[in-house]
Amino acid sequence: MKNITMLIHCRDQKGIIAQVTAFFLSAEGNIVYIDQYVDRENNEFFMRLECELPETVLIDTVRSDFEYKVAKKFNMLWKLYTRSRSLKMALFVSKYEHCLYDLLSRCSVGELKVDIPLIISNHDDLRIAAERFGIPFYHIPVTAATKPDAEVQHLRLLEEHSVDFIVLARYMQIVPPALIERYPNKIINIHHSFLPAFPGAKPYHSAFSRGVKIIGATSHYVTEELDEGPIIEQDTVRVSHVHSIDDFIMKGKDLERIVLSRAIKLHAERKTMVYGNKTIIFS
Amino acid sequence: MKNITMLIHCRDQKGIIAQVTAFFLSAEGNIVYIDQYVDRENNEFFMRLECELPETVLIDTVRSDFEYKVAKKFNMLWKLYTRSRSLKMALFVSKYEHCLYDLLSRCSVGELKVDIPLIISNHDDLRIAAERFGIPFYHIPVTAATKPDAEVQHLRLLEEHSVDFIVLARYMQIVPPALIERYPNKIINIHHSFLPAFPGAKPYHSAFSRGVKIIGATSHYVTEELDEGPIIEQDTVRVSHVHSIDDFIMKGKDLERIVLSRAIKLHAERKTMVYGNKTIIFS
Amino acid sequence: MKNITMLIHCRDQKGIIAQVTAFFLSAEGNIVYIDQYVDRENNEFFMRLECELPETVLIDTVRSDFEYKVAKKFNMLWKLYTRSRSLKMALFVSKYEHCLYDLLSRCSVGELKVDIPLIISNHDDLRIAAERFGIPFYHIPVTAATKPDAEVQHLRLLEEHSVDFIVLARYMQIVPPALIERYPNKIINIHHSFLPAFPGAKPYHSAFSRGVKIIGATSHYVTEELDEGPIIEQDTVRVSHVHSIDDFIMKGKDLERIVLSRAIKLHAERKTMVYGNKTIIFS
Amino acid sequence: MKNITMLIHCRDQKGIIAQVTAFFLSAEGNIVYIDQYVDRENNEFFMRLECELPETVLIDTVRSDFEYKVAKKFNMLWKLYTRSRSLKMALFVSKYEHCLYDLLSRCSVGELKVDIPLIISNHDDLRIAAERFGIPFYHIPVTAATKPDAEVQHLRLLEEHSVDFIVLARYMQIVPPALIERYPNKIINIHHSFLPAFPGAKPYHSAFSRGVKIIGATSHYVTEELDEGPIIEQDTVRVSHVHSIDDFIMKGKDLERIVLSRAIKLHAERKTMVYGNKTIIFS
Repeated sequence: MKNITMLIHCRDQKGIIAQVTAFFLSAEGNIVYIDQYVDRENNEFFMRLECELPETVLIDTVRSDFEYKVAKKFNMLWKLYTRSRSLKMALFVSKYEHCLYDLLSRCSVGELKVDIPLIISNHDDLRIAAERFGIPFYHIPVTAATKPDAEVQHLRLLEEHSVDFIVLARYMQIVPPALIERYPNKIINIHHSFLPAFPGAKPYHSAFSRGVKIIGATSHYVTEELDEGPIIEQDTVRVSHVHSIDDFIMKGKDLERIVLSRAIKLHAERKTMVYGNKTIIFS
Repeated sequence: MKNITMLIHCRDQKGIIAQVTAFFLSAEGNIVYIDQYVDRENNEFFMRLECELPETVLIDTVRSDFEYKVAKKFNMLWKLYTRSRSLKMALFVSKYEHCLYDLLSRCSVGELKVDIPLIISNHDDLRIAAERFGIPFYHIPVTAATKPDAEVQHLRLLEEHSVDFIVLARYMQIVPPALIERYPNKIINIHHSFLPAFPGAKPYHSAFSRGVKIIGATSHYVTEELDEGPIIEQDTVRVSHVHSIDDFIMKGKDLERIVLSRAIKLHAERKTMVYGNKTIIFS
Repeated sequence: MKNITMLIHCRDQKGIIAQVTAFFLSAEGNIVYIDQYVDRENNEFFMRLECELPETVLIDTVRSDFEYKVAKKFNMLWKLYTRSRSLKMALFVSKYEHCLYDLLSRCSVGELKVDIPLIISNHDDLRIAAERFGIPFYHIPVTAATKPDAEVQHLRLLEEHSVDFIVLARYMQIVPPALIERYPNKIINIHHSFLPAFPGAKPYHSAFSRGVKIIGATSHYVTEELDEGPIIEQDTVRVSHVHSIDDFIMKGKDLERIVLSRAIKLHAERKTMVYGNKTIIFS
Repeated sequence: MKNITMLIHCRDQKGIIAQVTAFFLSAEGNIVYIDQYVDRENNEFFMRLECELPETVLIDTVRSDFEYKVAKKFNMLWKLYTRSRSLKMALFVSKYEHCLYDLLSRCSVGELKVDIPLIISNHDDLRIAAERFGIPFYHIPVTAATKPDAEVQHLRLLEEHSVDFIVLARYMQIVPPALIERYPNKIINIHHSFLPAFPGAKPYHSAFSRGVKIIGATSHYVTEELDEGPIIEQDTVRVSHVHSIDDFIMKGKDLERIVLSRAIKLHAERKTMVYGNKTIIFS
């Protein structure tokens, strides 16, 4: 069988589900997963669907038939993904190693089904981690002087390695607009606070100084507004007055690891859709 | 508009969703919610659907048309509920008052959209709570001698008040088979542990003595196997060595309140389906 | 036995614990709880202690002895509370009834060991709840014109009823400086967001519009900076794209109930100390 | 300064805290952490204390003085640990690699301050992980025939490497009594369920089949009763009917990683005390 995943977005209208499912029925497909969400306020329809198609079916034919027979009628934005290969994920890191090791381990043991063709860093410190897992590591320093050149190198390396999406695993540099434009809703960041509380630098210090009783971490798609992109996943953990800033940081590391890896998994399995500045997350 | 909710269960087959949605399309219906779940291991299909139908449509006609045009074909078990009236919920209590007050308050302020025609108790202690909220209270003592008679009275009262489902809000008596048979998957219990850990009496004492670091509460449909029925909802809270049994009980009360009220809400909104000894919970 | 609770605050110095415990030892006291916290950054010491003293001991003598023999030496700020009576808690409400019913129920069943001498509201809607539990209810409208007069009435009523502390159970008015000054660190508010995210009005709407995956509630002492006072307790719950603003509000109500009641319990049991803009919470 | 950590256990008596703190005061020590717990039901006293002593002080003298001046009087069980070296932790694994990678990463980046002198496994599969982090790996197959010999080898290797404590990171063999006796309360296991629910083999399958809405993981000290030892740490995560057994396993892996690493950290920092079949966990 050929396995496909579809994501569909259009205005809400009568008969969408009926026609989509009828289409795959007529193509001898077996729908193994279907979920939909309707934003009633804005009258928008979203669907995620997994289908097994006979080996003999040509995916290109399915695509053109679907466009012609269904999508045009409802004015759909849609994507059809085959699962013939793993996505290629580039990692950007700086000096914090907890998320990097966590992701390398998860990919190594098959929990995250993505390939990591390269790791890019503005520091050389984490080369050892990359080498342990046999991943090419590119040290590209970023200073005021080298910044424009570094950005060119980044784009070139990402192209060369046919990267599908980028993960900022505690990368301590602001991502330039050109990169965001080239990879729209394909750059995932982990921010070490429960956004929108404590955006920007040193959120654990801010949380400590505010005296909160719970800290969090947030994974989101990167947009030009710093720490303002669509949130994919968040989680929280309790703290108390006995915890120092170092304790906050230590507890936060576990949050960051888990929240980032969950977000990557959702993205890689095509379970996220971005709409406005929000995400729809299919389970 | 007429609002209906449907629950459907059958063997998984091609075309179910297509035909169900096409049916309501042809009936001028507007599907405002649809969710489905397929148990792939056992090849079973489950669906929940909310639909707005034109005022002119006769519900009985919809029922017979659906049976004839769709349900028969797929050999469906199905139910169609109108939302013309609130469900009637009977409360059984003994001496613990926290769940009772919580449910009376939630119904009073409209958080739980059910009517409470009566409260039945084997003790007279909680009459004051019932009176405060103006609910009829029946004190029916249950001793070895009076048990058979009490059961007859229970059934009669439930019939007289046209009760739709029953909630055991910390009712400290075992429910007889006759009642379970009369209200299948319509009796909801709250057990004060994280089942299947610590079934039976005094679970907080058992949890304390085992030295667990987390305690829980479980709401489930009542079956003839004590504390073994299909689980609707659970939740947990952390404890530590500093907490006494009384602290466990106090913390547990909040769990019980929340877990029970969530389960009742799910049941009243027709979001639960029982299958084997498990539940499917639509969100 | 006479039961006392002490809260102590001073600069951290050698020998504090040794001398405090030796003092109560010499007074034939039995220390049943002792906990301390040292803020190493600022070198501040905090202690909470519960002690059983012989019936024959005069509390006033203990107080003067402690001041003379221990407190003076270490330049302590300290308070000694007897547990001879319940604290008197005034409730301020507006139109939201979930927290009010929850607190009335908890006091009624003995979960919260405080007395409620009166409920004050700027609307008359919740009188029914007060009457059900037999608590005096004062409807004092607050408009631009009546505001100064209302504030005078508030202060007078609080004095007349010998109120120890105030709880704003979703009171939709800003508390004036005079009241805050009169009850410093004795006014507890519940804010329906995970502060410092979404301060001010309509936090559920802001959370919805930001697309967060977790919402929260925060209970804090009221200071002149709106929503900026020392946080006593917070909690969070997961939400997703399927939840509407109404769902956020409904889920938030359970958070508000629990977070507020926990904060009140901590305050009433003398387990909170305020230091700077933060709290120390003894377990 | 010399940093020490003390753990003390005795019958609860008047004056313990006063005399212990006075002792360190007279030794020119600076107590930087002190916490105590009294089991009122059984009248037992527990204390954990961290102290900075002058460089000139001889630890052996402190030990003998403490025994003579304080411990004897109260009939204390006590231990004094210096922090001059990291503890040596042996890892036992089989085929599951998630906990192994997680622990190797945490030790490598300094989150867990322990040394790992060796990894022992009954399978050869995880050698690659050990090699990546440069840790000696011993493949010692365990069959009915080789079991007695394997146990001898285990004990010899542990002695040779001066191991302080053992972690079973999903080791799929039952630990023999001789090993437990040699390392009492020094063998930490991770069980992949919320004990006491689902002890024994295949807990995720049992949880799935029972239809629970929350799964958990439990880290405990190993005793001769399988899965019955003192619990150090537990945590839970929500599941629903849409999750397959594989989803349970995947979600459970994150729980196992976190619960096990927290338990190891607590043990390595001397924050655990075992009493009866329960633990006291100092924060």
